[in-house]
Amino acid sequence: MPSLEAPPRRLRAAVLGATGAVGQTFLRLLADHPWFEVGALIASERSAGRSYGEAVRWLGPGPLPAAFAGLPVLPPETVPDCDLAFSGLDTAAAAEIEPRLAAAGLPVISNAGAFRMDPTVPLLVPEVNAEHAHRVRAQATWPGFLVTNPNCSVVGLVMAAKPLADAFGLEALQVTTLQAISGAGYPGVAALDVLGNVLPWIGNEEEKLETEPQKILGRLAGDGFQLAEMRISAQANRVPVVDGHLLSMSLRFGRRVAIDEVRRALDGFGQPLASLALPSAPARALALCDGPEEPQPRLHVGLGAGMTVSLGRLRHCPIEDVRLVALVHNTIRGAAGGAILNAELLWRLGYLGPRWSCPN
Amino acid sequence: MPSLEAPPRRLRAAVLGATGAVGQTFLRLLADHPWFEVGALIASERSAGRSYGEAVRWLGPGPLPAAFAGLPVLPPETVPDCDLAFSGLDTAAAAEIEPRLAAAGLPVISNAGAFRMDPTVPLLVPEVNAEHAHRVRAQATWPGFLVTNPNCSVVGLVMAAKPLADAFGLEALQVTTLQAISGAGYPGVAALDVLGNVLPWIGNEEEKLETEPQKILGRLAGDGFQLAEMRISAQANRVPVVDGHLLSMSLRFGRRVAIDEVRRALDGFGQPLASLALPSAPARALALCDGPEEPQPRLHVGLGAGMTVSLGRLRHCPIEDVRLVALVHNTIRGAAGGAILNAELLWRLGYLGPRWSCPN
Amino acid sequence: MPSLEAPPRRLRAAVLGATGAVGQTFLRLLADHPWFEVGALIASERSAGRSYGEAVRWLGPGPLPAAFAGLPVLPPETVPDCDLAFSGLDTAAAAEIEPRLAAAGLPVISNAGAFRMDPTVPLLVPEVNAEHAHRVRAQATWPGFLVTNPNCSVVGLVMAAKPLADAFGLEALQVTTLQAISGAGYPGVAALDVLGNVLPWIGNEEEKLETEPQKILGRLAGDGFQLAEMRISAQANRVPVVDGHLLSMSLRFGRRVAIDEVRRALDGFGQPLASLALPSAPARALALCDGPEEPQPRLHVGLGAGMTVSLGRLRHCPIEDVRLVALVHNTIRGAAGGAILNAELLWRLGYLGPRWSCPN
Amino acid sequence: MPSLEAPPRRLRAAVLGATGAVGQTFLRLLADHPWFEVGALIASERSAGRSYGEAVRWLGPGPLPAAFAGLPVLPPETVPDCDLAFSGLDTAAAAEIEPRLAAAGLPVISNAGAFRMDPTVPLLVPEVNAEHAHRVRAQATWPGFLVTNPNCSVVGLVMAAKPLADAFGLEALQVTTLQAISGAGYPGVAALDVLGNVLPWIGNEEEKLETEPQKILGRLAGDGFQLAEMRISAQANRVPVVDGHLLSMSLRFGRRVAIDEVRRALDGFGQPLASLALPSAPARALALCDGPEEPQPRLHVGLGAGMTVSLGRLRHCPIEDVRLVALVHNTIRGAAGGAILNAELLWRLGYLGPRWSCPN
Repeated sequence: MPSLEAPPRRLRAAVLGATGAVGQTFLRLLADHPWFEVGALIASERSAGRSYGEAVRWLGPGPLPAAFAGLPVLPPETVPDCDLAFSGLDTAAAAEIEPRLAAAGLPVISNAGAFRMDPTVPLLVPEVNAEHAHRVRAQATWPGFLVTNPNCSVVGLVMAAKPLADAFGLEALQVTTLQAISGAGYPGVAALDVLGNVLPWIGNEEEKLETEPQKILGRLAGDGFQLAEMRISAQANRVPVVDGHLLSMSLRFGRRVAIDEVRRALDGFGQPLASLALPSAPARALALCDGPEEPQPRLHVGLGAGMTVSLGRLRHCPIEDVRLVALVHNTIRGAAGGAILNAELLWRLGYLGPRWSCPN
Repeated sequence: MPSLEAPPRRLRAAVLGATGAVGQTFLRLLADHPWFEVGALIASERSAGRSYGEAVRWLGPGPLPAAFAGLPVLPPETVPDCDLAFSGLDTAAAAEIEPRLAAAGLPVISNAGAFRMDPTVPLLVPEVNAEHAHRVRAQATWPGFLVTNPNCSVVGLVMAAKPLADAFGLEALQVTTLQAISGAGYPGVAALDVLGNVLPWIGNEEEKLETEPQKILGRLAGDGFQLAEMRISAQANRVPVVDGHLLSMSLRFGRRVAIDEVRRALDGFGQPLASLALPSAPARALALCDGPEEPQPRLHVGLGAGMTVSLGRLRHCPIEDVRLVALVHNTIRGAAGGAILNAELLWRLGYLGPRWSCPN
Repeated sequence: MPSLEAPPRRLRAAVLGATGAVGQTFLRLLADHPWFEVGALIASERSAGRSYGEAVRWLGPGPLPAAFAGLPVLPPETVPDCDLAFSGLDTAAAAEIEPRLAAAGLPVISNAGAFRMDPTVPLLVPEVNAEHAHRVRAQATWPGFLVTNPNCSVVGLVMAAKPLADAFGLEALQVTTLQAISGAGYPGVAALDVLGNVLPWIGNEEEKLETEPQKILGRLAGDGFQLAEMRISAQANRVPVVDGHLLSMSLRFGRRVAIDEVRRALDGFGQPLASLALPSAPARALALCDGPEEPQPRLHVGLGAGMTVSLGRLRHCPIEDVRLVALVHNTIRGAAGGAILNAELLWRLGYLGPRWSCPN
Repeated sequence: MPSLEAPPRRLRAAVLGATGAVGQTFLRLLADHPWFEVGALIASERSAGRSYGEAVRWLGPGPLPAAFAGLPVLPPETVPDCDLAFSGLDTAAAAEIEPRLAAAGLPVISNAGAFRMDPTVPLLVPEVNAEHAHRVRAQATWPGFLVTNPNCSVVGLVMAAKPLADAFGLEALQVTTLQAISGAGYPGVAALDVLGNVLPWIGNEEEKLETEPQKILGRLAGDGFQLAEMRISAQANRVPVVDGHLLSMSLRFGRRVAIDEVRRALDGFGQPLASLALPSAPARALALCDGPEEPQPRLHVGLGAGMTVSLGRLRHCPIEDVRLVALVHNTIRGAAGGAILNAELLWRLGYLGPRWSCPN
């Protein structure tokens, strides 16, 4: 059993892509983190050399924390003198920068899509597949390494699916998403495209929804990740909501199930990580809402400080077995908050630490 | 073959529920109709006795047509001296008022839900099941009668499904809807509930989506409607869009089909009513969009003056056979415009006319 | 100088109009208040007799606090066994209920409009006219009494105007407001009216904006309130924003002023109540924003937990003297939060207390 | 008096900046124009060489007209073989391209801001200052020349102000604008900036509102434009509306006026161009709305096919003399439609024609 101690000092975290939407969310969440502190801000050539306050277009909510405004923005080639790095880079930048930092010995906790399906890289949602984390030791760059969290919608999907897959076997899953604009970063979606409108397509989103869950819900085999066998059909829509991706799902199980069984499985999920006392883990990983119009972004997106996935509308499906609706906070649980929880898990598992005493 | 002549004079239509959202749309569409004219405005006790301009909170788009502003609003018990009645009543009022008018000899073309599943009442979408119209002769009130059009989302569903059901057999259909606020009438949805938000439930909507299509896509048997055998699973969401219901659908057919076959079936649908020269029938019943983000409310809801159903994102489904997205203008094709098209068909079929020469 | 002690026990507060939008905000803000606790929930006849969880349509953000869900809702004629009452009643109900409770000896801290201009009732914004509070002793119902806070937009106006009126004399003020939908309560504004739209009128709003400030900025004379002499011209608009009223203002002073003088006057305002250590008083009553697009609802409405008024765009006016933009959180500072701050001030001034030891 | 004949053949118009938001509106409005037809599409280097259908991201409403999809996009250095050019260029491109085309003999009807305040360039709103058009003869490039229309908000302001300035003398005008997102072009405003939010600043907008009206409402003096003497104070806000700029105005006149006088002056404005029979001139230049919540974008933006300016809320001002609200369709009357009306006026005045017979 892992020790439950906090790091001996706050670990210094570089934030890659610090001026972007995900980077800003990292800063908001790290501003008061008990284990981590911001050690370096790294962004594109265009921002480098300016103070963060000058370089960023701060998106809120709330104004830019004063502590960050004066920090210098470092160029993308920087190898920061930090204990770990959080990455909010876009895919192309991540593909180049993240391996370089891992090769330099840095643990890189990434929200980017570049290496999610790499056979040595954990695609980690701590409540779902914490054991995948151990695969970092197989990386060529060890003790530098790379850990990823999934696409923002995928997190909601796998959190809802995990207890059901464990209890009943999950064979097929239809999902239609209604995704918030913050998922596209900044400037992201043009107001003219989405105000009073829906866009029935999001580039690459359906592909991710149809492939990432099988890795996350799969098993760690001796030499890699064994994908879970299930078929997924995803349809993604962009809706005029600021934060909160909603998923209408229909699931087919290995056997007929009663709605009450499903409810018990979801209720019983609790917080599988409770014994690890991770600061960002919500008290309950899943919240099961009772109202007919629940969950909804306005009311539920902030549950568990944005780290709880809300579920509702649990009912029989005339075609598959069970239908339900899930809501995930896409920039917290689905991005920066999920990555920070990954880092907390990695500390507990002994894979993070002050660099000069990094375990191996 | 029916005659292609227009009525000898414009038929006088009463509008029931004239001050409501659907009633207003009837007025906008009838303002310049070649065959029909507004003969009486009937609304609730609260509005009766005032001029229409005083009684209505006009919702636009565009200001209230001056021709209607001065008309008197008649009380709900009125039996209007008209050739037909269009009903935009709510379910409870329709249940009481519509049969009374039919019994008085009036053809009632209703958008209400009260009698849609009645075994003698056609649930009519002219491009899909025009032959169901003949069932009006079986009604006890003949030559007064009642014809209904379906729920606004159902219209989009059955229009898209019809050519595919005919060509390949339709066994199952998963649909998640993203529905506009105008579908709830006025005042309808509170702004606080839907601005920047999604409501993952609409009262009674899923039940209608799961039962009305089987009647519409079914056959007229000797003594009633034989329901089509297909299973439907529907999940309904309210989104902050003014007009235009979007449907993400996944369809399972009686045999494996190639996407190209599906495309040809949809393209080939054309306008099945073309030979009838109905004024409100769009040139093409279905429009197949090519862009990846199409159809969408902003761009496509007004196609065919709001009477065309737009389709897009046609592609294979990893679970069922085919996926696609449909868009229907909920207050035009899905409500008042659909009802007016029904009336046009009924004229062509000889079931409407100046009342003193009503065919029987 | 008043004592800085907290009440000897939490004062029990009844919430009038508890199921309404303002009532809900009272509950959210009182859930963790150090001096007050919810002692009774009173609502209309329709809600009375049910539990609060059954009676309320909770508007969030966040789900209904569990502590309130089980409380009984009491009927409007209740005289609660409490130390004070917060009122979120509408004007008509307030006109009847509030005087009755005051007559029963209860301090009533009201957000309603019914008695704001009454010559014995303080219209209180603590940072602006704390001394008006003493007028409660002139009320016929003393030691029961009535204190009001102003219209939600007026709070932003007078907070911004106060330091400038003191420094330069304020002669005239043009204001155009852009007001959030939550200001209309629930169900309030219909989504069809405001989604993607602006309503250039709000009933009674301009009248309040043109009359309440003169009372608040006026002086407490021996026998009543002496109105400040200034002319105000207000134009009110409803915009599709959830929380946060924005005011574009243009002010004419008694003398020409330089922008730098104005900036210093605003910066110097600080928190005039600092010495009173009121729990809900923000560290700074006014926040002066620097960015060209500031203040804006998304970024600034939550400053000071919603109790700070944000200012920006300070510049010369070609017609009057100075222009600026103010932002006020309409449901917190402009309603329930403002009322709670009033109650905190009243405790400090000795006008509240456990009822059996109420000062007189 | 000018002849009322249409051109002998449709005049061929080049559209500059054809892929932009204003360029697209030109195409929509020219698709069925009786006097003009699209003769060439010119856009930036990036789009040149592709078909219009490939190069454009079409913004609607409605899909891209098929007639334009196949046209080639020509590079910015093109001197088109056309009778005139409409320009939807941005300021920088206009500064370079428009004078070159005028020098090549082409009439350039521009919506760009680059030359609006040039002393030889008319800043034209036909109902307001048609006589300014004659100034084109003073341009060095004659018979090639340049005519501009004003900033989109300015059009609403001067249309409302013109009859009042003529009748009463206009000394000062306070205006706060609530401007739609389409005014910023595409991609323009990021959804994250404006969804559920207001931005209380629009770059350069207030400067234009405070200077362009004086030129438009001024007189054509022998050697230039004599600016009207009036002070304007403008505050500009961006609101989440698609089309339609709303202006809250307060006006001070040379003498005290009664509201009834103002109403008569506005009503009497009619269509000053009526005798010219211009195809795009609306039947009434101004529409005076009666309802308390009017005008509003949803209901009134399309009046007169988007060419009528709607007015409402006419009432006394406690500080100036009169207050009112104006609404202008920013992409039609305020941009492409206004430019086309300018071209129609220029034809009537004899300044346009088939190029080989261009009048001089």
